[in-house]
Amino acid sequence: MGVVVNLTEERKLSPLDRLAELVADDLKATNQAIVDRMHSPVSLIPQLAGHIIAAGGKRLRPMLTLATARMCGYTGDRHILLSACIEFIHTATLLHDDVVDESDLRRGQASANALWGNKPSVLVGDFLFTRSFSLMVEDGNLDVLRILSSASATLAEGEVLQLVTANDTETTESDYLAVIKAKTAELFAAAAELGPVIAGRPEKEHKALREYGMNLGIAFQLIDDVLDFSAKQEALGKTIGDDFREGKITLPIVLAFARGTEQEREFWRRTLEQLDQHDGDIEHANELLTRHNALADTVARARHYGAIARDALGVFPDSAIKTALVDTIDFCIQRAY
Amino acid sequence: MGVVVNLTEERKLSPLDRLAELVADDLKATNQAIVDRMHSPVSLIPQLAGHIIAAGGKRLRPMLTLATARMCGYTGDRHILLSACIEFIHTATLLHDDVVDESDLRRGQASANALWGNKPSVLVGDFLFTRSFSLMVEDGNLDVLRILSSASATLAEGEVLQLVTANDTETTESDYLAVIKAKTAELFAAAAELGPVIAGRPEKEHKALREYGMNLGIAFQLIDDVLDFSAKQEALGKTIGDDFREGKITLPIVLAFARGTEQEREFWRRTLEQLDQHDGDIEHANELLTRHNALADTVARARHYGAIARDALGVFPDSAIKTALVDTIDFCIQRAY
Repeated sequence: MGVVVNLTEERKLSPLDRLAELVADDLKATNQAIVDRMHSPVSLIPQLAGHIIAAGGKRLRPMLTLATARMCGYTGDRHILLSACIEFIHTATLLHDDVVDESDLRRGQASANALWGNKPSVLVGDFLFTRSFSLMVEDGNLDVLRILSSASATLAEGEVLQLVTANDTETTESDYLAVIKAKTAELFAAAAELGPVIAGRPEKEHKALREYGMNLGIAFQLIDDVLDFSAKQEALGKTIGDDFREGKITLPIVLAFARGTEQEREFWRRTLEQLDQHDGDIEHANELLTRHNALADTVARARHYGAIARDALGVFPDSAIKTALVDTIDFCIQRAY
Repeated sequence: MGVVVNLTEERKLSPLDRLAELVADDLKATNQAIVDRMHSPVSLIPQLAGHIIAAGGKRLRPMLTLATARMCGYTGDRHILLSACIEFIHTATLLHDDVVDESDLRRGQASANALWGNKPSVLVGDFLFTRSFSLMVEDGNLDVLRILSSASATLAEGEVLQLVTANDTETTESDYLAVIKAKTAELFAAAAELGPVIAGRPEKEHKALREYGMNLGIAFQLIDDVLDFSAKQEALGKTIGDDFREGKITLPIVLAFARGTEQEREFWRRTLEQLDQHDGDIEHANELLTRHNALADTVARARHYGAIARDALGVFPDSAIKTALVDTIDFCIQRAY
């Protein structure tokens, strides 16, 4: 009977949970490092940073560093501070994103800017950015510093790029890809690449895991953009249609716009460029996305990048961590259902 | 006749101009590096960053790096990128400051957030922060990285500290000093310290120039805070009383509050804590500052820190650059008149 219960519980573990189990001790150390390193005598900093860091993130990015380090046979502890550093960069971006997007909710909870206002969110975001720099410098390896400083710079550039392409229905699929590579996938790539770098593995493995992270990140963001139009989203605590209301041009929109009639394009221009939105518009948008198969085809694109991520892992021998990294791809894509 | 004109022009040179002349070639190279390194294919980035970087800053901070490097006998070119890095950190902070302060003017011109809105100012500020980090990493020296990452982190912490002490009339002189050390003086200290570090000079000189920068920075900020209440300010293109309107508690206020009657304290609480301000309040504030000698005594405090900065230079042999660095202290303080 006890066995049956265990089996049932095991079946309920997501691939991400399994990855977390495989690096459980490391993840605990990372979480502790995060708490320790966001400390400041200025109490607003740990309060606000703690709110967003505790708000239910799955630590996917830091786990990539932990898992790739272990898969590459690394036995030291540099990956702990480095994975905390990755989470700080991510969190700083979230804080500034929420200010820029004027979001009231983040993972189903009140966002930091809704609770404390925009000013602390901007400044505590800066604090976390600079604290992430301090953590990299503490590691002291120049290859690591190059990877992380370049990822941070690309990420910041991607955020600006997203802002200038927002509300532009002429955005092409490749424009869109450039944005999500920079603002999302680059940090996944850096996180995954750190493992083989600190493990002192050959260049071939750096490139393989960078490729894995990059394509996983693209797939992840594509599905995120699908979820904004999906009922599934409500279960994740986010509001449906946030991107639509802000006039963000994501791949589902790009596809539906390209495939639409002139009248439909007029609808997209009114709602997304002029932000002139009325009751029923979000429902009509969903109807158009369905009519043109735009959500399903975005998921298909995600599968394509997921397949590349999977193949990138081919250079590594089989292991429990490798299996979990492969399953993580499917998990990220299956969030759409 | 020509000679007379030259003499006249020379007499008009401020100590800062003389410092700039002494490092003229380096400063030109730094300005070029700034333009080159703020480049991005996302054209909004150089547009917005160029607006604020070109907006008439005196390049005081980067000049500290250039001047201390040369005074310490440095003959390479690492100080060029590092001084550009210092200016990027400073500029990122200005962009975020203007968002937080909701300023419409910066050095007499429309601020970036007034022209482009808050969103690009937040994100381009992030870009400049991360770009500054790339420049440090490009230098690749761990001592340099430690100094600059620590300065950035302290600066960000200082900005949050300033936010949480804003509108608090109970702020003490030492609370206030902690804020301006972190948000202003720390970057001066780092900029000045970089010179002896890259010149490979002994620890004693690192400490001396760090001390110089720190105390110069404190004096500089004290005078800035005096200028907010001074007619001189209008000549600098800033509006008088900006700090007052935002309820910023600067040293003149701290002194006037401490020396005031209960009725006067009530006035400060109404105007600065509750931000309940009416016509004539700024004039009354100035009257109280004058009655309690608060502006003159803030200048006296600035002189004290200036004197420490001057003495810190004592370990260096006389040179034209050293003289210019000493005169820069007086110049920063005499801005008040």
